Amino acid sequence: MRLTTMSDYAMRLLMFVGQHQGRLCTISEVARAYDISEAHLTKITHQLALAGWLETVRGKGGGMRLAASPQHIGLGAVVRSIEPDFSIVECLTHDTSCQLASSCHLTGIINGALQSFMQYLDRYTLADLLAPSAPLAPTGDTVQPLNFHKPANLATS
Amino acid sequence: MRLTTMSDYAMRLLMFVGQHQGRLCTISEVARAYDISEAHLTKITHQLALAGWLETVRGKGGGMRLAASPQHIGLGAVVRSIEPDFSIVECLTHDTSCQLASSCHLTGIINGALQSFMQYLDRYTLADLLAPSAPLAPTGDTVQPLNFHKPANLATS
Repeated sequence: MRLTTMSDYAMRLLMFVGQHQGRLCTISEVARAYDISEAHLTKITHQLALAGWLETVRGKGGGMRLAASPQHIGLGAVVRSIEPDFSIVECLTHDTSCQLASSCHLTGIINGALQSFMQYLDRYTLADLLAPSAPLAPTGDTVQPLNFHKPANLATS
Repeated sequence: MRLTTMSDYAMRLLMFVGQHQGRLCTISEVARAYDISEAHLTKITHQLALAGWLETVRGKGGGMRLAASPQHIGLGAVVRSIEPDFSIVECLTHDTSCQLASSCHLTGIINGALQSFMQYLDRYTLADLLAPSAPLAPTGDTVQPLNFHKPANLATS
């Protein structure tokens, strides 16, 4: 498992854009708001657009906006679209040279723990992150996936 | 959240030592068994000994053994003893420059997901990893079905 800062940044970027609906947001202003690098945010914006969570508009005056309403952007789905290799144990993703692999229960247990983690995230959407105050109640148990589409190139200024 | 390969290696090291109870095991043979570096294993052995999961014997003929019976070595506890900074979001562990921190629900949601992950691990012990074959039932309370990964390529030498 390697849930990285990229997922963290992705959720924050969506929060920022979600808090400024009605206009286009730029990578520069998100970078300033969170004090994180534009290079990271450019990569994340591209991934989120590919996954169908953001729409991007090119050129001068361009930027990004949400491609769906916040309650239809599931946090578990966002993490799955950002993490290329969401696993901890080598033998989940690669052929292994481990001599104990044939009798190993580790991957099954870690998989179960990961499922618990993701099932928890699946109960929340961007709308929960945008809620003005606690207490926080999940949006619901079911989040429908979006249809994926190709993004436009990114405006970065 | 940054559950690293160190936790993976720690659990494998404990598995190896648990499968060779009755004698001392060396870092060299664990390194050969899993094809991972002795440097990593030395660090992990030290951490596991500090945490009370391993006993180490110095000098020629020395090595390591379990410091407790496998059913008393909880997998969640092992991970907690290895991961120095088990968090994903910056503001869980550090002062943050984030301008939205005052109204942010992200840390609470991620914390909940981490708790789900760890609570799942807490249901298992090293004894579960040492069980000879599936089906696997956790040492603790509730039984959940596991999806076991079958490695495609087993090393036999």
